[in-house]
Amino acid sequence: MTNEELLTLATFQSWKQVISRFDKGLAARSDEQLQMQVAPARNRLYYLLGHLTAVHDRMFTLLGIGERLHPELDEPFITNPDRAGSDPVPPSDLRKAWAEVNDKLTALFENFTTADWLHKHSAVSDEEFASDPTRNRLSVVINRTNHVSFHSGQAVLAK
Amino acid sequence: MTNEELLTLATFQSWKQVISRFDKGLAARSDEQLQMQVAPARNRLYYLLGHLTAVHDRMFTLLGIGERLHPELDEPFITNPDRAGSDPVPPSDLRKAWAEVNDKLTALFENFTTADWLHKHSAVSDEEFASDPTRNRLSVVINRTNHVSFHSGQAVLAK
Repeated sequence: MTNEELLTLATFQSWKQVISRFDKGLAARSDEQLQMQVAPARNRLYYLLGHLTAVHDRMFTLLGIGERLHPELDEPFITNPDRAGSDPVPPSDLRKAWAEVNDKLTALFENFTTADWLHKHSAVSDEEFASDPTRNRLSVVINRTNHVSFHSGQAVLAK
Repeated sequence: MTNEELLTLATFQSWKQVISRFDKGLAARSDEQLQMQVAPARNRLYYLLGHLTAVHDRMFTLLGIGERLHPELDEPFITNPDRAGSDPVPPSDLRKAWAEVNDKLTALFENFTTADWLHKHSAVSDEEFASDPTRNRLSVVINRTNHVSFHSGQAVLAK
């Protein structure tokens, strides 16, 4: 393996590991348990699952690697806070969407070359990217992996 | 910047960003507020701070980059759960230790070459490393960055 391959592999492995840990916690909760809050008056597990799914779904366009699968999740799970309206999606559909989005992203990352990882993300202009080449896809994936970790730390508290 | 430099820089920037966000939250809490729990019957902020400091302090030996600064934090903050005994360190000393450990680690990472990042960590044997070169320092730092994110997600819940 080349140095470049080893360096990108570290991020890719971390992405898979963090999602797999969240998945384990998710599998251990029934649909009814997804209604639990992580702490009093805080987000429900249901909302965290929808939020993470929506944020990951946005990565297709942010990374310029395909069409989004579930744009309908933005409004209830990113624009609005938990319990702003009635639940828009049954928990089972949300579980399915979460798995679907991650599986597709992971399959794409699996085949990324170093050049793919270092490609600019779509929220940065060519000019900005020329002066700051760290605004690349790799940084986005690292950031999103930390984002899953952040909410995983909350999800384990629900009881 | 070379590809290798860009690839390692992404992890290094993420490490700094995640710690800096935790630091902001920490600066916003008084020593008295560090006694708050992240959720009922869960860890206090004081314990999380000690735990993260101890885990980061162990990176000096785990990465083979120097002597630990605060081995005395292992017992109260890694071996034992929160409130197992009386608080061993005043909050102000814990804040100082946290900053000291991270500043020193960050200064070392700043000067890491690609070879330094891809060097094996000390918990893996030469033989194991030969068959799995992903068990390197970069992976440890990515893992620890996710660990800070995990507990940061909890720390923001304390009120």
